[in-house]
Amino acid sequence: MNFDMISAASDRLKGHVRRTPLLSSPALDEIAGKRILIKAECLQHTGSFKFRGGWSAVSALDPETRSRGVIAFSSGNHAQGIAAAAQAFGVPAVIVMPADAPSLKIEGTKRLGGEVVLYDRAARECRETIGTRLAEERGLTLIKPYDEPQVIAGQGTCGLEIAEQAAKLGVTSADVLVCCGGGGLTSGIALALEQLAPDMLVHPAEPEGYDDVARSLRSGQKERNATEAGGLCDAILTPTPGDITFPIMSRLCGAGVVASEDEALRAMGLAFQHLKVVAEPGGAVALACALFHADDLKHDTVIATISGGNVDPAIFARALKTL
Amino acid sequence: MNFDMISAASDRLKGHVRRTPLLSSPALDEIAGKRILIKAECLQHTGSFKFRGGWSAVSALDPETRSRGVIAFSSGNHAQGIAAAAQAFGVPAVIVMPADAPSLKIEGTKRLGGEVVLYDRAARECRETIGTRLAEERGLTLIKPYDEPQVIAGQGTCGLEIAEQAAKLGVTSADVLVCCGGGGLTSGIALALEQLAPDMLVHPAEPEGYDDVARSLRSGQKERNATEAGGLCDAILTPTPGDITFPIMSRLCGAGVVASEDEALRAMGLAFQHLKVVAEPGGAVALACALFHADDLKHDTVIATISGGNVDPAIFARALKTL
Repeated sequence: MNFDMISAASDRLKGHVRRTPLLSSPALDEIAGKRILIKAECLQHTGSFKFRGGWSAVSALDPETRSRGVIAFSSGNHAQGIAAAAQAFGVPAVIVMPADAPSLKIEGTKRLGGEVVLYDRAARECRETIGTRLAEERGLTLIKPYDEPQVIAGQGTCGLEIAEQAAKLGVTSADVLVCCGGGGLTSGIALALEQLAPDMLVHPAEPEGYDDVARSLRSGQKERNATEAGGLCDAILTPTPGDITFPIMSRLCGAGVVASEDEALRAMGLAFQHLKVVAEPGGAVALACALFHADDLKHDTVIATISGGNVDPAIFARALKTL
Repeated sequence: MNFDMISAASDRLKGHVRRTPLLSSPALDEIAGKRILIKAECLQHTGSFKFRGGWSAVSALDPETRSRGVIAFSSGNHAQGIAAAAQAFGVPAVIVMPADAPSLKIEGTKRLGGEVVLYDRAARECRETIGTRLAEERGLTLIKPYDEPQVIAGQGTCGLEIAEQAAKLGVTSADVLVCCGGGGLTSGIALALEQLAPDMLVHPAEPEGYDDVARSLRSGQKERNATEAGGLCDAILTPTPGDITFPIMSRLCGAGVVASEDEALRAMGLAFQHLKVVAEPGGAVALACALFHADDLKHDTVIATISGGNVDPAIFARALKTL
């Protein structure tokens, strides 16, 4: 797992991925008391950064393997990323999703031609087991959501864009807050910035109660969340950091940052009001940390990802009520 | 008023304007039965395309005139565009706004340093009269919202980007639907595309009951709306086409297209769901026409502007309920 794989992924993604804007607003700077730049990956195809890793992984397969199809397990955003990439290559995609995923994400996956298989997250069924069994039965290639080098390489292309776009604004040093579940986006961006913007420091951003990565970085070993089910930030509720992503984050990242669900909802409201973009709760956690917990950060500029915008209208209505 | 003025405005705007993305979604193509590309000007600084015209006009003033300050009359988006540009140049901006403008827009204008003067739109006070009087009293330069060549030139830079971004996707012929009030954005885009994409045909898009431009294009003379007050699409409720914009639209535009307020709310909901951007009612009218009235259009591809996203949360909640 290295920078060259990110460069190669960037070449494969060219003409397919959307170069998402780096947004800003004086009102947000005022709230944070710092300059805030927002990488709006909610504007990516399929509504989240996961399209990058999905396309990267599917495009990296040899054509014969790819033609048999792919399988993914995902709360929804990786699902859509993989389904969209598979559809573009004309190959089947089976997606194993938790039954309590937002209906928007389940429908979105089906619309992209994905065959959806549901499992019960609260019952602690291991989605890895389900995914592996289906892959063997049907000759599909399993594409893991974060612990897969080509997926990390794809997510890292977001870091290439951050480095370029920030440099254009004269920003070469910053704290970079990344919404973090298993760590695919976080470690990909960290690898890209290590090479292109070594004065930027990446911090994983997590919701309160699901801060396995922050705790793991503190203790130096992989820690687990007490529960997987029930959180508002469904996109980033993974039990523990990945085997590939954790060593990368340990080597390259600063301390993890944490925001409450209420703060994530307020960040969604402020993104609506001042940026005109739609953030989902899990996708708003980094912005929430930037807005409400920037005092602890070292640099004058904070770059935050809005990693996705696939949110059901009823949840978004709650965010509007915070304004 | 010509293409060279748009090029010159583009040079002045470089490094200040945001290059907004041209978005798309398979779900929207399906609804329309055509390929739909969306120019997301809601992502522009201040939340609407008006920043382009504001910056263009303020930057075109000679420094001594500019230093005395500027004045604008606006339902809110032009207000914020002018206030932001004036603030960047460090000069005063007085903004004459209708008292019933969305509070978000009034607050946004004040936050950008604008001095807000309110008037009563329902009482048919002529905002032009108010603006002209204040300008004379205080030595301010009046920057009209659409009937001003440097404003039209600024809005035209949106057309430069549309031509470039569409060409990258292989699209050189299309119907281009532009949210239309007084016609500044519509005529600016039409002038840009006449030069750069002559196979594209611009259509002004208006809300039902406020279709003065569509009727004027049909009759060949400037028609007026029956009322100015009360519509949901506050951003584009101008009484009649501009003296400068109407001849340009007459020469270059196809027939006007019209959507209902309900359709605009549905388009806002679909932009939330599939594009992850926030559209205001007046900014969603062109997308509504593209989604629900594309049958009448000639080309296989429709490009629609989302011209702004400055909408109060309560109105946006109504749009979410259409999903």
